[in-house]
Amino acid sequence: MNLMQLGQQAQMAAHKLALLDTQRKNSLLLEMAAALETATPEILAANAKDLAQAQDNGISETMQDRLRLTEARIRDMAQGIREVSQLPDPIGEVEKMWKNADGLLIGRQKVPLGVIGIIYESRPNVTTDAASLCFKTGNAVILRGGKEAFNSNQILVNVMQNALAANDFTPDAIQFVSDTSHDVANQMMKLTEYLDVLIPRGGAGLIRRVKESATVPVIETGTGNNHIYVDKDAQLEMAKNIVDNAKTQRPSVCNAAETLLIHQDVAAAFLPVIAAKLAEHDVQLRADEGALPYLAGAIPATEEDWATEFLDYILAVTVVADIDEAIAHINRYNTKHSEAIVTDNYFASQKFLAEVDAAAVYVNASTRFTDGFVFGFGAEIGISTQKLHARGPMGLEELTSTKYIVYGDGQVRG
Amino acid sequence: MNLMQLGQQAQMAAHKLALLDTQRKNSLLLEMAAALETATPEILAANAKDLAQAQDNGISETMQDRLRLTEARIRDMAQGIREVSQLPDPIGEVEKMWKNADGLLIGRQKVPLGVIGIIYESRPNVTTDAASLCFKTGNAVILRGGKEAFNSNQILVNVMQNALAANDFTPDAIQFVSDTSHDVANQMMKLTEYLDVLIPRGGAGLIRRVKESATVPVIETGTGNNHIYVDKDAQLEMAKNIVDNAKTQRPSVCNAAETLLIHQDVAAAFLPVIAAKLAEHDVQLRADEGALPYLAGAIPATEEDWATEFLDYILAVTVVADIDEAIAHINRYNTKHSEAIVTDNYFASQKFLAEVDAAAVYVNASTRFTDGFVFGFGAEIGISTQKLHARGPMGLEELTSTKYIVYGDGQVRG
Repeated sequence: MNLMQLGQQAQMAAHKLALLDTQRKNSLLLEMAAALETATPEILAANAKDLAQAQDNGISETMQDRLRLTEARIRDMAQGIREVSQLPDPIGEVEKMWKNADGLLIGRQKVPLGVIGIIYESRPNVTTDAASLCFKTGNAVILRGGKEAFNSNQILVNVMQNALAANDFTPDAIQFVSDTSHDVANQMMKLTEYLDVLIPRGGAGLIRRVKESATVPVIETGTGNNHIYVDKDAQLEMAKNIVDNAKTQRPSVCNAAETLLIHQDVAAAFLPVIAAKLAEHDVQLRADEGALPYLAGAIPATEEDWATEFLDYILAVTVVADIDEAIAHINRYNTKHSEAIVTDNYFASQKFLAEVDAAAVYVNASTRFTDGFVFGFGAEIGISTQKLHARGPMGLEELTSTKYIVYGDGQVRG
Repeated sequence: MNLMQLGQQAQMAAHKLALLDTQRKNSLLLEMAAALETATPEILAANAKDLAQAQDNGISETMQDRLRLTEARIRDMAQGIREVSQLPDPIGEVEKMWKNADGLLIGRQKVPLGVIGIIYESRPNVTTDAASLCFKTGNAVILRGGKEAFNSNQILVNVMQNALAANDFTPDAIQFVSDTSHDVANQMMKLTEYLDVLIPRGGAGLIRRVKESATVPVIETGTGNNHIYVDKDAQLEMAKNIVDNAKTQRPSVCNAAETLLIHQDVAAAFLPVIAAKLAEHDVQLRADEGALPYLAGAIPATEEDWATEFLDYILAVTVVADIDEAIAHINRYNTKHSEAIVTDNYFASQKFLAEVDAAAVYVNASTRFTDGFVFGFGAEIGISTQKLHARGPMGLEELTSTKYIVYGDGQVRG
C-alpha cells in the first residue's frame, strides 16, 4: 500500500478530470451506473463475504443491515449515480465578473477542489455516492472505507474503475485504499501534498480522530447534538408534533433531536403531553429537577447527557427560565448542527435565529429537515458542522473551489 | 500564558461581537483609530525598544525598516482602520432564500467565522490590519506576532483593547499572545476547541510549519512561486513590460514573478531584449540550456531554482517547446498563486486560463495585480493559496461563514 503513489495518480487524474466537459462526465457516470447493475452477481458475492465476516464477529443486526446489499439496493445505487448525472454541473460557472480600476476583466470561476479524500464507515453505498459526486464536480477521489465493508467497497470501486477504463478515461480518478489499518488512515490524514480536502463520514469517534490528527484541510461532518426549545408562546400541539418527529421519526441520524428545552411557564402543560406521545415509541426521558415532577418514569439527567448525541430513543429534558437560558444551554452543549424553536412570538423567533450558533436554525419546524436533498440541492456528500468552506448540507457546489481568471490588454502595476 | 483561557475569552467575546450592528462596529473602529493616533508617543517608545533589540541582534536594514514605526506610519494604520469602517459589512446578508418542497423558507445568511487566530511575522501594521478586519466581520481574533515586534504589537493591542473597554465593549474581542515561543505557537495550532480558523502570514517557513502541525482549520497564505509564459504569438514589447513589472516593481512580495518561460520560436528575439531591460535592475538570470546562449551573464539554473520563491532580483528562465510544456512546468513547480501568459492567440489564452492551476491566472497582464485592494475588495487579510474556503485575495467576505435560517409553520418530516 503506497499512499504517496495513490496520491500522485489521483492528482494527475484530477488535472484530466478538470478539463472534461459536462456531457462527457455525465456519459461516464451513466456507464458506471450500468456497469454496477451488470456486475450485480459479483457485487452480491463480495458483499456475502463481508456479511459472513460480520456474523463471525458478532456484529449487531442493525449494523449487518447497514452492510447488506441486495439487488434492489444495487439498483438504487445505480439510480443514485444516474440522478447525479442529471444535476446541473457547477464547474466552469463564473459567479461574478467585473472590470477593476486598471481595466482588468476579473472573473471568479468555479473549479474542482482537486483531490478529495473520504474516510467512512460501514455503509457501502457511500462508496458509489461519494465517487459519483466527486466525479461530477471534476474531482479525483481517494476512498478509504471501513474494514467491515472491505470486499463490497473494493468491488464497487473496481466496477466503476473498469467502466472508466473501458470508455477511455483514466481509472485513477477513483482511488481505493486497500489497507484498512488505522496506520494508513493516519497517513492519509497527513497527505498534505496530494489531498486538497479530507471529509470524514461516520460516528463521533471517527470525526474526533480525524479532527485531532489531520493536517490536511478537513470538513467535519455529521455529529448532531440537536435541541428543540418550546417557548412559552408555543402552540403546544405543534410543539408535540415537532418534538415527536425530531426524536422518533429516525433517531439514528444526525439531524434527530437529543434534548428538549421547555419554558417554565408551559412545562406543566406540555411535559405530560409530550411524555405520553413519546411513550408510544418507548422513548426514555432523562430530565433535570425542573422537569422530573411532570414526567412519570423519567430518570434524572446527568451532566454528560446534555453533551451526548444519543442516536437512540432517548431524550434529555430541561426546564428553562426563559429564552436566554435556552440559547445559552444550546450554545454551550450543541455540535452546531441543527436547532429549533417552537413559538408564536415574533421577537423570540428572530432572537433564536440570530443568537443560536448552528449550521441550520429552525422556527416552527423539525430539525429532521437538515439534508441536502430536502434543502433542494439534489445531492449530499455530508453535513458540515464546521464553519470553514461549507456549513450545513453539502451538495455539488460545496465540492468546488474558485479561480480568478483575469483578462488584460498589457496592464502592468504602477 | 494560558492559551485555553485566551480561547475561552475570545469565544465568549465572539458571541457578543456577532450581535453588534454595523453602526456600533464602525463607531468602535473609529474609536480604535483615534486611540492609536493619541497613543503615538507610547507606541513609538515601544517600537524603539524593538528596534534597539533588532540592532543588537544584527538584523538586516530591510528587516529593521519593516519593523520601524513613525508618526506617519501610525497615522496610516489609523487611516487603514477608518477605511475598514467605511467598507460594506457582509455580516447578516442573506445571499439567497427559497421555499423548498415542504414549504420551508430557507435562507443562507452570512455570519462571522467565530474566533480567528493569526500567526504573523515582523511587520507591526499586520496587528491593526488584522484586528480591524476581524472586528468588522464580527470575529474575535487571537494575534500571535513575531518576537522581533513584540513590544510594538503589544502596545498596539493594548491601545485597541482600551478603546473598546472605554466604550463599553469587551476588550476580549482582540486577544494577544504574550509568549512568542515556538511551543506556544504550536499549542495555538492545535487549539481546535476555540479556534475556528488559523491564518498564518509570513514566509514560506512559517506557512510550512503551520501546514504540517496545525489541526485547527488553516488558510494558507502568501507563498508565490509565479511564472510568466511568453507565447510564440506574444507582442514582445508588451511581454517585456509585463515581465519587467512582475519581476522588478517590488520583488519582495508574493505576487512578483520568479520564472520566465519562453516559447522556443521567439527565444532568440525576446531573451536579449528582456535581459537588457532587467539589467537596469541588476537582475540575476538563472537559465536552462535552451536559454543560456541568448543571455550573456546568466548562470545555469538548478532543479531547485524552478521551485524557489526568490523574493529578490533573481529570475529563472526556461525555453519551452510549446504551451503544453509551459503549462506542465507551471503546474509542477508553482505554489498555485498567480500565473500569466502573454499572447495574441485566442486559443492559447483560453487554454492557459483553463489548464493552469492557480488562484489567479492572467492573460496579458502582470502577476503583480493579485491583491485584495487592486481586485476591488477594499481590504485584504492575505492571499489564500489553498483551495478550501477561500482562494486568492481575501477581503471581508472571506472572513465569514454561513448559517441556514429556516422559517416554518409547523412542518415535520414525513
